[in-house]
Amino acid sequence: MPDTAPASPLRTALAQAAAEIDTALELLLPPAEGPEAPLLAAMRYAAIGGGKRLRGFLVLEGARQFGVSRQAALRVAAAIEMLHAYSLVHDDLPAMDDDDLRRGKPTLHRAFDEATAIIAGDALQAQAFAVLADEDTHADPAVRVELVRCLARAAGARGMCGGQMLDMLAEAATEPLDEAHVGRLQLLKTGRLIEFSAEAGAVLGKAPAPQRHALAAYGRDIGAAFQIADDLLDATASADETGKRTGKDAAAGKATLLGILGLERARMQAERLVEQAVGHLDSFGDRAALLRGLATYTIERKS
Amino acid sequence: MPDTAPASPLRTALAQAAAEIDTALELLLPPAEGPEAPLLAAMRYAAIGGGKRLRGFLVLEGARQFGVSRQAALRVAAAIEMLHAYSLVHDDLPAMDDDDLRRGKPTLHRAFDEATAIIAGDALQAQAFAVLADEDTHADPAVRVELVRCLARAAGARGMCGGQMLDMLAEAATEPLDEAHVGRLQLLKTGRLIEFSAEAGAVLGKAPAPQRHALAAYGRDIGAAFQIADDLLDATASADETGKRTGKDAAAGKATLLGILGLERARMQAERLVEQAVGHLDSFGDRAALLRGLATYTIERKS
Repeated sequence: MPDTAPASPLRTALAQAAAEIDTALELLLPPAEGPEAPLLAAMRYAAIGGGKRLRGFLVLEGARQFGVSRQAALRVAAAIEMLHAYSLVHDDLPAMDDDDLRRGKPTLHRAFDEATAIIAGDALQAQAFAVLADEDTHADPAVRVELVRCLARAAGARGMCGGQMLDMLAEAATEPLDEAHVGRLQLLKTGRLIEFSAEAGAVLGKAPAPQRHALAAYGRDIGAAFQIADDLLDATASADETGKRTGKDAAAGKATLLGILGLERARMQAERLVEQAVGHLDSFGDRAALLRGLATYTIERKS
Repeated sequence: MPDTAPASPLRTALAQAAAEIDTALELLLPPAEGPEAPLLAAMRYAAIGGGKRLRGFLVLEGARQFGVSRQAALRVAAAIEMLHAYSLVHDDLPAMDDDDLRRGKPTLHRAFDEATAIIAGDALQAQAFAVLADEDTHADPAVRVELVRCLARAAGARGMCGGQMLDMLAEAATEPLDEAHVGRLQLLKTGRLIEFSAEAGAVLGKAPAPQRHALAAYGRDIGAAFQIADDLLDATASADETGKRTGKDAAAGKATLLGILGLERARMQAERLVEQAVGHLDSFGDRAALLRGLATYTIERKS
């Protein structure tokens, strides 16, 4: 069912950011000619078009707080979206979640093949770091290397990959996970990258530590809220609405906070997280209005 | 058949470097406790122990030309070996080369499972960049970010992943590849990372451009020689000798220079590359003796 809500400033800004991020990705992942064309085509299929670009939007809005150039912010946004896209490609593989549908189209290994999906995911991860390290991203090498350091941590064994592994183990486990364990799993699997997305603009803008930490804390909270909202959507929405297969958490016996807390308490927890996220922005002025609005949007969205 | 040749200074140096690199990897990939233990165990299984550590040795010897601290060089050597280990893990997957044996033990997806192998490979790539970006690697952020930039290029769509994709496409192709195409495939698949391994010490040592370029050119040549030697070993040695399945190129109908040139011309080309590699070291003094010896060793090794 198409979303027919009237355009709000947030929706307009999200749509514009998504379009700008796609343009940046087009430039950073140009099509190749000759024998190298198929890999680039697969990387572009996975990374360009579709997606809410929540992470990229956080980078752009975070960067705007500190007057960072749009071009620099867009490069970092695109790098993080490449990393996110690679994680979706690998998560969708037959040996992992075995999904056929992503962002409203066939998953990469269905549209191409499994080997291509593995390699294209690997190459997208490398390309994300290449973009951050390139001097076009920021004149100061200390800024570039700090971005690399943070992204590598958010992506690695104590970030996204660590969470993905906990998720695989949870599915195989005989005993259900408790709330603390599920919280940890989700913090690693999606939270760390969303946290860094919110923080990256402060790194680019060489912001004072308290402001950088405030944005990171905001990112952690909306990341957790976003995850609960995702679980709620998976349980209650259709694939037409979300562009990916739904109802799969229950089918896979996946441990979610929703499953542990129940619908009502999960919704309350998401609302509490949103309030807390907005609280972290107290020291920011009107410029943070869209970030405040985004916090609420994460739990009200339909896809 | 065990190699019973007497110890040479090069063999001693290779063995010592391999041991030091393993120690560095132990520190950079410490075992985890609790639910995060399995992922770290898989990463350690893939990265620690075994392997010739050719790439790491090139980093250490390159760095020694410029008086770089051993600790810094070992971190970069370990990072490159992590990246190499991840590429082997993913290449061995059922959807790729479907191999059971690597470095004399079961491949990661056989010892653990396929999902773990995909995730552990992904996490090793992230960890390689995390190590390079960490300030323990070099005090100067410009050096660290240059290392990241070079590794990301060597690993990405126009490096290792690009070569891996060409390799997969070559297997599926109906027409045999020509010499230029195979050369390009191998330059990307293994050459770029070996080139950067040879060059990394010059980056760490902030060496003048001509010396950095000479080491890179040396790396390109021994990388190409190494690949021909690998093909020769695959065609003529046993799995007992190499610690991995052999004869698989012919079985898979893989395009190799050996297949195109024939045994004799392939050997001659490898020798020519070794001479050329040594020529690039003309401006280096006695300190480069081991690098000269390594060039010859690449085509005389038994595994």
